[in-house]
Amino acid sequence: MKAKVHVTLKPGVLDPQGKAIHHALGALGFQGVEEVRQGKVIELELAETDRARAEAALDEMCRKLLANTVIENYAIELTD
Amino acid sequence: MKAKVHVTLKPGVLDPQGKAIHHALGALGFQGVEEVRQGKVIELELAETDRARAEAALDEMCRKLLANTVIENYAIELTD
Repeated sequence: MKAKVHVTLKPGVLDPQGKAIHHALGALGFQGVEEVRQGKVIELELAETDRARAEAALDEMCRKLLANTVIENYAIELTD
Repeated sequence: MKAKVHVTLKPGVLDPQGKAIHHALGALGFQGVEEVRQGKVIELELAETDRARAEAALDEMCRKLLANTVIENYAIELTD
């Protein structure tokens, strides 16, 4: 089973990477960019075939390793 | 208009970050993880309201800054 985990900074948490991209886009002449935030996406291939068990395992992976839940939100998406 | 740009390594390109996550998940006791790849997601808020013009601008941003097209693929998603 394939899964995607989206990890994004919580609203209000400073995003220096996003700010750097925003600044660089401006320097390259792109007008009208109002905000930029950068997150990450982790694609996993799991041996598990049961959706509920896969989701439970992914949730635990997010809490233990993939996301820092103090400053980040995560969303789990099973793609097949 | 809001947009998401997904940047992922092309198949076959070595992904040390993904490998590190894979290894760490194993060390934490998660069994049955077969592959891990990490990509990034860039969320942009654009002043542009025309979808076609927004997509064209985003495509140019990807080619010029957001993605390294030698080793990365990108996908543009307009979310409103």
